[in-house]
Amino acid sequence: MKDIPMSIYTTLQRLNIELPSAAPPVGAYLMSAPSGALVYLSGHIAKKDGRPWAGKLGADMTTDTARLAARAVAIDLLATMHAHTGDLNRVRRIVKLSSLVNATPDFTEAHLVTNGASELLVEVFGEAGKHARCAFGVAQLPLGACVEIELIAEIASQP
Amino acid sequence: MKDIPMSIYTTLQRLNIELPSAAPPVGAYLMSAPSGALVYLSGHIAKKDGRPWAGKLGADMTTDTARLAARAVAIDLLATMHAHTGDLNRVRRIVKLSSLVNATPDFTEAHLVTNGASELLVEVFGEAGKHARCAFGVAQLPLGACVEIELIAEIASQP
Amino acid sequence: MKDIPMSIYTTLQRLNIELPSAAPPVGAYLMSAPSGALVYLSGHIAKKDGRPWAGKLGADMTTDTARLAARAVAIDLLATMHAHTGDLNRVRRIVKLSSLVNATPDFTEAHLVTNGASELLVEVFGEAGKHARCAFGVAQLPLGACVEIELIAEIASQP
Repeated sequence: MKDIPMSIYTTLQRLNIELPSAAPPVGAYLMSAPSGALVYLSGHIAKKDGRPWAGKLGADMTTDTARLAARAVAIDLLATMHAHTGDLNRVRRIVKLSSLVNATPDFTEAHLVTNGASELLVEVFGEAGKHARCAFGVAQLPLGACVEIELIAEIASQP
Repeated sequence: MKDIPMSIYTTLQRLNIELPSAAPPVGAYLMSAPSGALVYLSGHIAKKDGRPWAGKLGADMTTDTARLAARAVAIDLLATMHAHTGDLNRVRRIVKLSSLVNATPDFTEAHLVTNGASELLVEVFGEAGKHARCAFGVAQLPLGACVEIELIAEIASQP
Repeated sequence: MKDIPMSIYTTLQRLNIELPSAAPPVGAYLMSAPSGALVYLSGHIAKKDGRPWAGKLGADMTTDTARLAARAVAIDLLATMHAHTGDLNRVRRIVKLSSLVNATPDFTEAHLVTNGASELLVEVFGEAGKHARCAFGVAQLPLGACVEIELIAEIASQP
């Protein structure tokens, strides 16, 4: 007999995470596009109270705050995955994350900022949440956001 | 009876778009590489009259001009896809776009620049042209180009 | 009768390349994640003598030096692929490379830096090493590294 894994929604409840409604795109694109077993999620910018969470690392925002912003982005990515799949239990694994950190030319902690998102995904999905990733500092982001993260996930055809 | 969709080449004609010849790489790489049903297109830099279209957003180029540059990149991407597939009607969908905008640390409209490419792809492919994407400002691009865009598309084995 | 291709390990020996041990991640992620026939390798930062190879192009490092750094990253990527696959001869092709170059706002040779990695991959894998790629200048990288490269490869289920 196989162990029945805990529902992702139960895990979210235990973590006191309430999924927001999925954000609409701010341009001529989709928040998620499927191809084969994969779904590609568009770059999601950090938001606070529904508005762009602005800030530049190395200038006016600390690594700790941006780490919370990255965690918030990961929750928004979950909301988009929920909208895309209809059931987060169909997520077979988080494959890849690209994390863009709005940074000055001397801020060298993009990886620490990004851990806020990576750790949340592992808390939610366990082993299946462990992913490849890349993290780096960019000159600027849409609407001045402090972090933007895009994601590739593998989806099972059956839950 | 199924509707026969309009040929992509008829659509291009109606939009007065003439495909340029596919650009060669400027280094030890390919302009497109297939894997399974996907084709990965290399980052294409913006060109004007066949030469790099230089400029930095927030300094010496407006969002409107860069939007035209992004549209021009999308047309070059079509040329590469045409060269890769032999028939653009085999493109099943545009999956993902990454758009790098050469920008100062205070330029926050990378998404508006990128719309120039995203909208062209939807004009050409309709629903199948809608894609996930990410857009951000980078410190600098090869040859000083104002925009660089890479793309993933899904290709049908039969037209 | 089919030609038996030379083992990748023989090629590495001829190139005097000794694979280092695969680097561990510096955060809550994996250095490689599989999905279908693909493996996604995390962004690997340049290292020298096992420590981050710091530098900023356009300020304190030349294109030639950074090209060597990019070549070193490609060797580290090979080490990760070796650890992931157990046998580099299973690599069917290098599909895609993204190369992030730590650069000032006026450094326009990210493509030349990246050639250091691209050329090494072609030396090692021949035709199968030719890939799509994108290269650009970023504001800053984790730990001040001069280059960070991520990679997608296609892996055969049988060697």
